[in-house]
Amino acid sequence: MALSTMFTELFGLRHPIALAPMGGSAGGALASAVSNGGGLGLLGGGYGDLDWLARELPIVAESTGKPWGVGFLSWAIDVGAVERALEWNPRAVMLSFGDPTPFAERVREAGAALIIQVIDAEEARQAVDLGADVIVAQGTEAGGHGARRGRSTLSFVPVVVDLVAPVPVLAAGGIADGRGVAAALALGAAGALVGTRFQATAEALVDPSVTKAIIEGRGEDTERSRVLDIARGSSWPSEYTARTLGHPFLDQWRGREAELAADPQAKQAYHESVERGEIPPLPVWAGEGIDLINDLPSAADLVGRMAKEAEDALVRAGSASSMRRPGE
Amino acid sequence: MALSTMFTELFGLRHPIALAPMGGSAGGALASAVSNGGGLGLLGGGYGDLDWLARELPIVAESTGKPWGVGFLSWAIDVGAVERALEWNPRAVMLSFGDPTPFAERVREAGAALIIQVIDAEEARQAVDLGADVIVAQGTEAGGHGARRGRSTLSFVPVVVDLVAPVPVLAAGGIADGRGVAAALALGAAGALVGTRFQATAEALVDPSVTKAIIEGRGEDTERSRVLDIARGSSWPSEYTARTLGHPFLDQWRGREAELAADPQAKQAYHESVERGEIPPLPVWAGEGIDLINDLPSAADLVGRMAKEAEDALVRAGSASSMRRPGE
Repeated sequence: MALSTMFTELFGLRHPIALAPMGGSAGGALASAVSNGGGLGLLGGGYGDLDWLARELPIVAESTGKPWGVGFLSWAIDVGAVERALEWNPRAVMLSFGDPTPFAERVREAGAALIIQVIDAEEARQAVDLGADVIVAQGTEAGGHGARRGRSTLSFVPVVVDLVAPVPVLAAGGIADGRGVAAALALGAAGALVGTRFQATAEALVDPSVTKAIIEGRGEDTERSRVLDIARGSSWPSEYTARTLGHPFLDQWRGREAELAADPQAKQAYHESVERGEIPPLPVWAGEGIDLINDLPSAADLVGRMAKEAEDALVRAGSASSMRRPGE
Repeated sequence: MALSTMFTELFGLRHPIALAPMGGSAGGALASAVSNGGGLGLLGGGYGDLDWLARELPIVAESTGKPWGVGFLSWAIDVGAVERALEWNPRAVMLSFGDPTPFAERVREAGAALIIQVIDAEEARQAVDLGADVIVAQGTEAGGHGARRGRSTLSFVPVVVDLVAPVPVLAAGGIADGRGVAAALALGAAGALVGTRFQATAEALVDPSVTKAIIEGRGEDTERSRVLDIARGSSWPSEYTARTLGHPFLDQWRGREAELAADPQAKQAYHESVERGEIPPLPVWAGEGIDLINDLPSAADLVGRMAKEAEDALVRAGSASSMRRPGE
């Protein structure tokens, strides 16, 4: 055991690091690599596509003997997807965005840990009422979808920690190295949920162009917006925006979301641009921490490296006080 | 010495905590209280009002034998204000927002430490070139003015730390208790610059209604906008927004800044509402960390309390790894 927390103890993990269940890109290979590296790998079940689950669930289940889990979008799924996942005995099911109530009891009945991601204090209270075993506090730095008018991780996490104690909290959003993990623990979280950093790993199910963009991108190149969801005709509810790298459609339509939504020709133009290969088929979802992402390691190695960095950061930060303790 | 860092060593401080030089409200009583409490008190010199400086500089200089400093807005001042401050032998001068070049050399010549606050990587590089002794990395969680499209503290601080090493960095924005200070140190900063938390102290030069609003407010009630600067006819440059608590003019004009700027009647209405006492004379500038502000301590006590909380947070977060060290 290195950094021991309520979260690592709950699952018997070596490191207080969880993989964000990024829809599509957090497949069985990535989830099992994170678990084998000592963290908690969470499969990106997303919208609950049964074909995708049928392909990826066996991979994670058969590639690791360590605890792993599956994440879903509460607003998008029906209970069938959760049932399908539970057939493979995940140690945890994580529910994000939308009302987790219809699925919470089923997860608990199956003996899996219930992880609920929250974006405001009201959702945190609801997660406690639903009996969440772990609550993820997501800040607006996060890549991909999140609150339209979100809270920043640094100031949101301690609020949730105080509100839901003694339920363990994971910090999510903007964490891409061990210093961020250490900061999460300092804020009172029991660990960090890390997304974008794991997109740039050997095991992620992403196009090499996405990996390259993440490695080269900077935090100030990322932006939270609904424009690309509207342009591509996504069914994401309007209360969520997504943080992505820059995109020509963002520059063209920023601040004119209502106009774009009412313009079928503009949406048609988006799809035609995708078909012609002028713009990528999907936005590059990326968090504000991407400045810190500069290589393409294996995810299993990365978990250990981040944990070591976190330990070092805490020892460095607290050295004077820790050293003083014995003589106090 | 409790938490020893390059910042505490540079100034001989007990605690790695600095007072944000909040224009007007960080007067001599507050700055000296923070210094007497073991942090670095920075007088809020703001626009460089010579009458205000003439009143507050003697107070801080005569109320503490510890190191203290003065902060100014680079875009607003002329060198006369800096000269006036230097007559009182501050240990540090902090320059924020705008080009610090015209003042940097004068500060260094006088033997004061040069502290430069930055809101993006380019400004961080410039601060190093100007010979800054300390660089403050301000995240968008901060109360009051900051970058229009800013970076979050959690992901911005490590970027600046790496960029400017070995120059010590202070983290600013969203830090309102010792856990936030601990997180700043974990991220690699040498301390935290704290603003809003010190507005709710006995020594701050603020109206009791402001203190009450900060104690009662929540992070999600704060918002970054230019609306109130435009309405009140402020001369703040348009590249800065300010984070404030909610305000009727924000609800009325959000998203219509250009329209407000071109509407003299609306601005007149703002001033008439102020005169009639319907809205306060100034916006309530407040950072996203205000959920964590629930009392009205003396600033000197608060510095020690936050430092103790930070130590405890680091010991708690790192306990497993620290305990393991001797036997490794």
